[in-house]
Amino acid sequence: MPSANRYDITEWPVGDPTDDVGEVFNSIIADIKSRQTTDKPGAVIYIPPGDYRLRTQVLIDISFLRIEGSGHGFTSSSIRFNVPEGEWADLHELWPGGSRILVDIPVVDGAEESAGAAFYVHREGSPRISSVEFSNFCIDGLHFVSDGSGMHPENTYVNGKTGIHVAGANDSFRINGMGFVYLEHALTICNADALSIHDNFIAECGNCIELRGWGQASKITDNLIGAGFKGHSIYAENHGGLLITANNVFPRGASSVHLEGVTRSNISNNRLHSFYPGMVVLAENSSENLVASNHFLRDLEPWTPFLGIDNGLDDLTGLLSISGSNNTIVGNHFSEVIDSRHIRPVGATPTIIRLVSGGANFVSTNHVVAVDVHATSGGSAYEAQVEALLATRVSDDLAVSTVTVDAGSAGNTILDSGTDAQVAMNRSVNAFRATPTFGP
Amino acid sequence: MPSANRYDITEWPVGDPTDDVGEVFNSIIADIKSRQTTDKPGAVIYIPPGDYRLRTQVLIDISFLRIEGSGHGFTSSSIRFNVPEGEWADLHELWPGGSRILVDIPVVDGAEESAGAAFYVHREGSPRISSVEFSNFCIDGLHFVSDGSGMHPENTYVNGKTGIHVAGANDSFRINGMGFVYLEHALTICNADALSIHDNFIAECGNCIELRGWGQASKITDNLIGAGFKGHSIYAENHGGLLITANNVFPRGASSVHLEGVTRSNISNNRLHSFYPGMVVLAENSSENLVASNHFLRDLEPWTPFLGIDNGLDDLTGLLSISGSNNTIVGNHFSEVIDSRHIRPVGATPTIIRLVSGGANFVSTNHVVAVDVHATSGGSAYEAQVEALLATRVSDDLAVSTVTVDAGSAGNTILDSGTDAQVAMNRSVNAFRATPTFGP
Amino acid sequence: MPSANRYDITEWPVGDPTDDVGEVFNSIIADIKSRQTTDKPGAVIYIPPGDYRLRTQVLIDISFLRIEGSGHGFTSSSIRFNVPEGEWADLHELWPGGSRILVDIPVVDGAEESAGAAFYVHREGSPRISSVEFSNFCIDGLHFVSDGSGMHPENTYVNGKTGIHVAGANDSFRINGMGFVYLEHALTICNADALSIHDNFIAECGNCIELRGWGQASKITDNLIGAGFKGHSIYAENHGGLLITANNVFPRGASSVHLEGVTRSNISNNRLHSFYPGMVVLAENSSENLVASNHFLRDLEPWTPFLGIDNGLDDLTGLLSISGSNNTIVGNHFSEVIDSRHIRPVGATPTIIRLVSGGANFVSTNHVVAVDVHATSGGSAYEAQVEALLATRVSDDLAVSTVTVDAGSAGNTILDSGTDAQVAMNRSVNAFRATPTFGP
Repeated sequence: MPSANRYDITEWPVGDPTDDVGEVFNSIIADIKSRQTTDKPGAVIYIPPGDYRLRTQVLIDISFLRIEGSGHGFTSSSIRFNVPEGEWADLHELWPGGSRILVDIPVVDGAEESAGAAFYVHREGSPRISSVEFSNFCIDGLHFVSDGSGMHPENTYVNGKTGIHVAGANDSFRINGMGFVYLEHALTICNADALSIHDNFIAECGNCIELRGWGQASKITDNLIGAGFKGHSIYAENHGGLLITANNVFPRGASSVHLEGVTRSNISNNRLHSFYPGMVVLAENSSENLVASNHFLRDLEPWTPFLGIDNGLDDLTGLLSISGSNNTIVGNHFSEVIDSRHIRPVGATPTIIRLVSGGANFVSTNHVVAVDVHATSGGSAYEAQVEALLATRVSDDLAVSTVTVDAGSAGNTILDSGTDAQVAMNRSVNAFRATPTFGP
Repeated sequence: MPSANRYDITEWPVGDPTDDVGEVFNSIIADIKSRQTTDKPGAVIYIPPGDYRLRTQVLIDISFLRIEGSGHGFTSSSIRFNVPEGEWADLHELWPGGSRILVDIPVVDGAEESAGAAFYVHREGSPRISSVEFSNFCIDGLHFVSDGSGMHPENTYVNGKTGIHVAGANDSFRINGMGFVYLEHALTICNADALSIHDNFIAECGNCIELRGWGQASKITDNLIGAGFKGHSIYAENHGGLLITANNVFPRGASSVHLEGVTRSNISNNRLHSFYPGMVVLAENSSENLVASNHFLRDLEPWTPFLGIDNGLDDLTGLLSISGSNNTIVGNHFSEVIDSRHIRPVGATPTIIRLVSGGANFVSTNHVVAVDVHATSGGSAYEAQVEALLATRVSDDLAVSTVTVDAGSAGNTILDSGTDAQVAMNRSVNAFRATPTFGP
Repeated sequence: MPSANRYDITEWPVGDPTDDVGEVFNSIIADIKSRQTTDKPGAVIYIPPGDYRLRTQVLIDISFLRIEGSGHGFTSSSIRFNVPEGEWADLHELWPGGSRILVDIPVVDGAEESAGAAFYVHREGSPRISSVEFSNFCIDGLHFVSDGSGMHPENTYVNGKTGIHVAGANDSFRINGMGFVYLEHALTICNADALSIHDNFIAECGNCIELRGWGQASKITDNLIGAGFKGHSIYAENHGGLLITANNVFPRGASSVHLEGVTRSNISNNRLHSFYPGMVVLAENSSENLVASNHFLRDLEPWTPFLGIDNGLDDLTGLLSISGSNNTIVGNHFSEVIDSRHIRPVGATPTIIRLVSGGANFVSTNHVVAVDVHATSGGSAYEAQVEALLATRVSDDLAVSTVTVDAGSAGNTILDSGTDAQVAMNRSVNAFRATPTFGP
């Protein structure tokens, strides 16, 4: 019966989903496989709203499996963990919700990173595993742990847990409408083809989206994303034809978008916000990419628990750093809002766009706004941040290098992206047209 | 039992959803709250396709609630109400459909605006209410009423009704796949953080999306939107880091996008169509925003019932008007298609981009097309409009000021956005490069 | 009872959905109509995961119908059909899956194209049929057939089958989360108003999205799309106010986006990849459109079964070809990666942007990368392609005409889109500013 391809984890007679939903999932998947012969028509596993503890990793090695819930359930664990525990009794609720998977897998020191994944997807052979879909539920890593730094353990972004780990080549996967919170790695996908990561809420995770190995023709679109200070909000390596667009990437990731060896991709039309330099990094000969119509904002960490934290990069790094060739950088807005007393190296002129190596990049029609502010902070995560975001009036202009081209990069064309004084490069090996100014 | 967190309004034993679905919702929400202790895992309320009259306001004060239906159900009430009632018997159907909430709340003169909301969301205390989701159903305000102007009451866009009103601070809400029709305010959300309004159909409402109070890190993406002539299609105030992208905003809103005190936001890649000036307004020191890759079209109202209606603004207002600083305006297309006999003030040269106050804005690589047409109209809303949209051939060029910078705005940079003759500003306090021309 | 508006095709007592799901659908639709009087509140038909053979065309002539499944189910049939059949026994699965409709309609020689449609939507009279939604299921055309060329029949992209054919004027339709595979026409929609085609997977079809007749205010957003070599990935005619954005369009369509008589539309922010010239075509006086922030890549077919296939256009066609006026072409990246030994006509300088007829177009700030490579290929569709995509290092620069303006087009403005040597046009009737160069 086709309708037998629908499963509800709370109606499945094997296991208790509130005690170990991993066991229930694996039992359902075994049932699906036992009924499939040459026809493998797919199945859907439904997670009703509720809390489900996951003690056993879910192993997915079948195509056409959809796992869906009825609520992404994100709420800020970070804010709660930075409220004194004595005040918890006054809180309306303590934890994320929706259709919520509580990742409670034992994490063994020295184990493979993927051993800490709630959902582990892998299949050998041909064809590649296809059309696995995750939709509209919550994966919650529950707690971070001490990293030895003396920082509050719940603020470390470390716990060895992953939400979804896809280990091998895959085709036409979809991740839609999900919530991820308090995982060291939210979503790690190796060797993706025609992947769609769309309209998710992925925040307060060590790393949010990591596309590893290699891949092509995928999209990361229309997500709300914000990693921790040690990791990436969006990371991809050896991908071609990747489309990263319409994302709102908020702090405090070490980077907003970090690409290694990524080619012929389109990173456009995002809103990117960070507290550190190195917001968008095109590394390892990332070439022939378009970076267009993005809004970059770097300002200061306004929330008390994270004051003094950074990603280790100095102000010469650039908000956008490029090691590669033939990229196109057009129509971006950059706001750099920092406290000049804390510039590193001391006395340096901060850089906004930096071309490190490669060459023949085309940088045109970018607008840089740089202001010097005196840092303030507050105990409320969102009030402090909204105030900082809206404060555009009381500040002084800050001198910056809008574009810096290193000796290792040549043959670039830099147009209308800074005045003559704002662009630092060898004009005999790069083409240049200064943004016009007025007055005498 | 976790599965008890699923509710179907037609299977709930309290109240009759066809008589007053508000009573049914409130009874279900009371049940959810009575069963929640410290664990508040969320719930989903399902609205099957059908008509449900709402006489009592639904009060939502719990996180992790998803309300979902099976159909956005939009159909044009405006077209129907402008068909002679004697012809209604020949119509296939008279009303919107899908999973449809008929908003029939009594509206009391002088009551708070929010009293007319079908869904009213508010909770005091901490944490902020989170993860409330509305998905894939229809909210229909049924009728507009006389506004005293003598206009056909069903064309006034006034009835005191709101679809969803979120009154206080909130986090990670989602509004997806909804339909809104014939409401004075479709969606009003105060103090939003990480809000997603995605892929909805919001039209024939007085105002469509209003983000009030303050907020941050939200997105309004991939919607079909069209407000009435008195209101806004998209309005936001005191928001930072807002992403407004991939929307198709059609007439006849008084504005397409109206921002007050909005900073560091990205308004890019939209298709915007209006019958009036003042399509996109950055007011009240809206600063450091990016307005890129948008298609602006202003043309003439083609539909008979609304001939002679406008938003009161004259042709010097600009299609894009900016009161603020450090904004970036790049790569936009503007089509102004009007009848020169009706320009206001008489004899004026219409303005396309106007910088009113503030300064240091960067305006580059914008293309303006302006043509003079003789107005025509028709009795069929969509045939008249499609014909007008497609008629690009028979028309004369119209002289416009592509960029006008007022004395109150200085330090701006205007590049490649108009010929020398088309840009009106003080060139001694603003930088300028004219779009090149050809010929002698 | 409102809840009676929900149908599950596997629970409907009439017909066997595994034998002929078309009969089941039509029986359900007849039931919906028999129960509707003046109130037509809509209905949802659910397709559980599974295989459902469709032998009878489904006729939809009611508004507010939602058909939804639980899985888009795409997997590559093309890859499987190019594996020797003797190896099929080693494959994990042979066919697409999810909630899968197997289109097995008899195709009669000489019949109307629409006769081969699985879902045929049409209604005469007023109002226009509204709010029909297709969501999250798979439509599989199963096989292509011989086209008389001697090519492997499964590689012809011909079979006379269509997924969804909407024959008449319609309003507020939605196509979301669907999978389409091995159909000659995936989605053909005539006379659309406020249509949304969002987040679908449409590949290995002769043509993917075709908007015919006329239409307005629609959007094609955030899809993964790839047509066959004879057809279009995205086609539209006589549309105004169309928004085509955030799509990842992969090979091997004869075009990525082909527009005829399309006006005042926004084609921005897409990632486009093709093996042939003529990737984006604005034909038949398509005017006042914006083409911005798109990433164009044309490279060589790397997969053995399709070597030697092309769309018949030569290298003077341009990757972007414009017959129309007042269009805006800004901020695009173009990569042309071809083998100079195979340029047609022999000895020609390939063209990237070509303005054929019309005039007054504005072309600014576009970046062209052109490299000469020696073609290689492989037997694995995705490995060969990923390797080609990532190979940006070993190649020689290729001389191209970045912009060519024909004598039939005048009054254009070409800025920063090529050096003086790279732009071929009559500079006395078009405005020009060369991209600056460096050195002596």
